Amino acid sequence: MSQPQPLRGIFAPVLTPFHADLGVDIPRWIEHCKHLLVTGCHGLCPFGTTSEANSLGMDERIEALEQLVVAGVSPALLMPGTGACAIPDTVRLTRHAVETGCAGVLLLPPFYYKGVSDEGIFRSVAEVIERVGDDRLRVYLYHIPPVAQVGFSLSLIERLVKAYPQAVVGIKDSSGDWANQEAILRNFPGFGTFSGGERFLLDNLRLGGVGGINAVANTIPNVLRSLYELWQTPEAERIQERILALRKPFQEYAPVPGLKQIIAHFRHDPAWLTVRPPFVGLTEAQSAAVVAGLAEVDFPWARA
Amino acid sequence: MSQPQPLRGIFAPVLTPFHADLGVDIPRWIEHCKHLLVTGCHGLCPFGTTSEANSLGMDERIEALEQLVVAGVSPALLMPGTGACAIPDTVRLTRHAVETGCAGVLLLPPFYYKGVSDEGIFRSVAEVIERVGDDRLRVYLYHIPPVAQVGFSLSLIERLVKAYPQAVVGIKDSSGDWANQEAILRNFPGFGTFSGGERFLLDNLRLGGVGGINAVANTIPNVLRSLYELWQTPEAERIQERILALRKPFQEYAPVPGLKQIIAHFRHDPAWLTVRPPFVGLTEAQSAAVVAGLAEVDFPWARA
Repeated sequence: MSQPQPLRGIFAPVLTPFHADLGVDIPRWIEHCKHLLVTGCHGLCPFGTTSEANSLGMDERIEALEQLVVAGVSPALLMPGTGACAIPDTVRLTRHAVETGCAGVLLLPPFYYKGVSDEGIFRSVAEVIERVGDDRLRVYLYHIPPVAQVGFSLSLIERLVKAYPQAVVGIKDSSGDWANQEAILRNFPGFGTFSGGERFLLDNLRLGGVGGINAVANTIPNVLRSLYELWQTPEAERIQERILALRKPFQEYAPVPGLKQIIAHFRHDPAWLTVRPPFVGLTEAQSAAVVAGLAEVDFPWARA
Repeated sequence: MSQPQPLRGIFAPVLTPFHADLGVDIPRWIEHCKHLLVTGCHGLCPFGTTSEANSLGMDERIEALEQLVVAGVSPALLMPGTGACAIPDTVRLTRHAVETGCAGVLLLPPFYYKGVSDEGIFRSVAEVIERVGDDRLRVYLYHIPPVAQVGFSLSLIERLVKAYPQAVVGIKDSSGDWANQEAILRNFPGFGTFSGGERFLLDNLRLGGVGGINAVANTIPNVLRSLYELWQTPEAERIQERILALRKPFQEYAPVPGLKQIIAHFRHDPAWLTVRPPFVGLTEAQSAAVVAGLAEVDFPWARA
């Protein structure tokens, strides 16, 4: 577990803007990606849970990633989500990401069938790595049992790293369970452990973690960045508390529509409100509550 | 809800055989499909949960369905599963099924995001129907909350049928909850309600349901067919009980590896044992227990 960690810092699971007809709004998306990189993010995770990635078609994901790189965003800063239910689809997305030059991929386990064994998930990930068959592949396991229901246990992580030390280099822990993240950090020093929950970001860094992949990086990359830079200073606790306060305006709603509301508000751009089913947008009352909440916490909208 | 029901009877969610390299074994699959149709099944649901459909890639599903029809299986007998997480993928699979002439499609709700609203699922299904935009489309809602976690509530069914009376013609209820299936049957007479659980098959038929889509149809289509034919006779109860007894050999294991073991045994064809990750095959001890169980229940393997 002593592989160099190519990726560290604050990564945004980038929100995906849509046209009114629900098509991916590529220009607005690329602009948002670039905005995040100049306002605090070290890198980006297109096609995470917050990106409504699993509401995007396979072809849409391939096309969008190509456009992003063509538009000048360095693939060295990208860790796209590539995990699908079926091995062939996961292989297609993963191979494309590697061939596009992406520094890493964020890999969901196969998530349709429930109650599957560690052995089954191991075989699935192994099959993907073998089929992609590219020394450049760097996999970050995506552990998000509250949504995927299927996840990566400690013993499964250990087994995958032993079998593929060059390829399996890190994890995003979105379990919401600090005990789990602490166990990963303590058991696997040198492994690239990102905190999926922003509330554990400081604790992650203190225990040797490499940073955060957090939904709120879409709206407060600047604040998250400051915590990453200052975690060893006396300021750190205060910044961590401030991050928790800044979640309040949207945290009681579905995070994706809430975050899109914040962006629509600060950018004066209602096009950002569109979500793809099965998500639905906030009601007028909910939108108003989010906007009112921004004033209450003196929301530090990051301007480029 | 008075649309003619094109599909009735016993349907098999067809198991998918794989080569040793995990590729879909198309010839063996087509042979199995034809075998089921001559030994009891009225029709077939390729790409159901039992088919490991969600472990098959989008392209594999398109290709396999084409090969099946080219091989002479009438699409009028087919209700392939076409529901994926993302609307574009679902539209692609659904449009292809309709254009191939399939009598119906079995539609999972978008199943990655959890805790989504009925409104969100409604919009998702509506978007699929509108985009496919073909009068020939007949949708059977696939309600399987134990696996998909996301499902179709009674009020959502009602709303979908009202909005799309020609397209939304039925449901497969795999909730495992008889109270739910009974409520569907009583609230929506004339709707094409299939029992996803074989243990409710007789009760389904007695309350006006149209039949069953059952994993065990892969191994005992003859017995299920006899219940469908004789449900109004004094024999019915005995046949239903016999079906329950015939589940025993595999029911304590994951159903897919267990069913594949039964087919491998009776066909003397170990190629049937292969499953795709995240499933894993049975251990030798489990396989032996399944085979021993077959003798105990005098398993009536259907020979063509």
